[in-house]
Amino acid sequence: MVDFTREEREAVYRAIYARRDIRRFRPDPVPDDVVERLIDAAHHAPSVGFSQPWDIVVVDDEETKLEIKDIASRAIAAAQQGYTERKEDFGKLKLEGIEESPLNVCITCDPTRGAPHVLGRNTMREMDVYSTCLAVQNLWLAARAEGVGVGWVSFLYPHEVREVLDIPHHVQPVAYLCIGYPEGGFPEEPVLQQEGWRERIDVEELVHYGGWDPAKEPDGSVEAASD
Amino acid sequence: MVDFTREEREAVYRAIYARRDIRRFRPDPVPDDVVERLIDAAHHAPSVGFSQPWDIVVVDDEETKLEIKDIASRAIAAAQQGYTERKEDFGKLKLEGIEESPLNVCITCDPTRGAPHVLGRNTMREMDVYSTCLAVQNLWLAARAEGVGVGWVSFLYPHEVREVLDIPHHVQPVAYLCIGYPEGGFPEEPVLQQEGWRERIDVEELVHYGGWDPAKEPDGSVEAASD
Repeated sequence: MVDFTREEREAVYRAIYARRDIRRFRPDPVPDDVVERLIDAAHHAPSVGFSQPWDIVVVDDEETKLEIKDIASRAIAAAQQGYTERKEDFGKLKLEGIEESPLNVCITCDPTRGAPHVLGRNTMREMDVYSTCLAVQNLWLAARAEGVGVGWVSFLYPHEVREVLDIPHHVQPVAYLCIGYPEGGFPEEPVLQQEGWRERIDVEELVHYGGWDPAKEPDGSVEAASD
Repeated sequence: MVDFTREEREAVYRAIYARRDIRRFRPDPVPDDVVERLIDAAHHAPSVGFSQPWDIVVVDDEETKLEIKDIASRAIAAAQQGYTERKEDFGKLKLEGIEESPLNVCITCDPTRGAPHVLGRNTMREMDVYSTCLAVQNLWLAARAEGVGVGWVSFLYPHEVREVLDIPHHVQPVAYLCIGYPEGGFPEEPVLQQEGWRERIDVEELVHYGGWDPAKEPDGSVEAASD
């Protein structure tokens, strides 16, 4: 019944547990055949009504990367204004590796793909974007198995990314990913945990049996962890 | 540099390529230790600002499943009204396995987790929901490696699901998953492809180099494939 060997099963879990959000990259390129495998892995994600709403825009030229980095720099500066106590900590975090990573990839969602009747996108209209996120995670895990690091940059103004990459107005940029070999390898723990930003929540606090349990109190804040 | 063996890497790709959206289940339960591993895999997804915004509501009692199934039946009947030409085809599709599957799981997104300052959820407010979707895909791939099938039911009214499962108003039900051993094993192809609903798009039509290429014309419609 279970058609994966124990070793195969463990390899899948290993990719899941050893995957990290990478922000520091070595400059050496990711070989074309590896990039092709990552993209094909993304394309084999589940999608609502088998609509496959994603497109993948590959960016490796310095000029375009610098334009995207400029957007990120302004979005990061804007976010920093929202912090008071942790403003200094925030300033120390490395939040993107757009320029250093040899490859950037923007994964988008086209809501017109397979429309008007996308099977299953009826009462939950956002299912196409959800499908696009599933494709991102396929790519991320495949990359980990290839020894390739991925970092998702969300400090961006999506409408500006759209303009820089000539993405049509009806198509939504969902994920902007930096891709390359991680400098110093894959960290043992998530970077934000290493830096003391937040802790991993005890999984038991997140699981509810039969219905929502209001007694659960998940908290990954560092204050709570150290008090 | 690449720390996965060839066999380990292939196992990860195998999970990605052999994963299916399952709607027909055997009644035998998924052992508790397997369920725990699936949930822990979900919990090790990347999340914006390491916020871990997901909760996991586990449902295995008949009464609750029937309440959810009633919601799905109405959402499916509503969707069918939108079809004209393919109304009959639509009626033949099996769209959910809520009752048959031994286990249902609702994965939610709590936007207050780690708030007010969730690192990276500034200019892209939906990053918490995107993170929740990444958790779904971790669970889905881990399940495949365990020989366990998963089907995402999107024919649901999320506000009704919230009510049935006592989920607080501020928490968003993102994914309702049916989980169990697939009846007849995992299909070779996606179910909707097998049923002639849509075709897989040629991946080359989805990849753009340097910026959006308007010449690409992805189309997975069956009309296009057979014309």
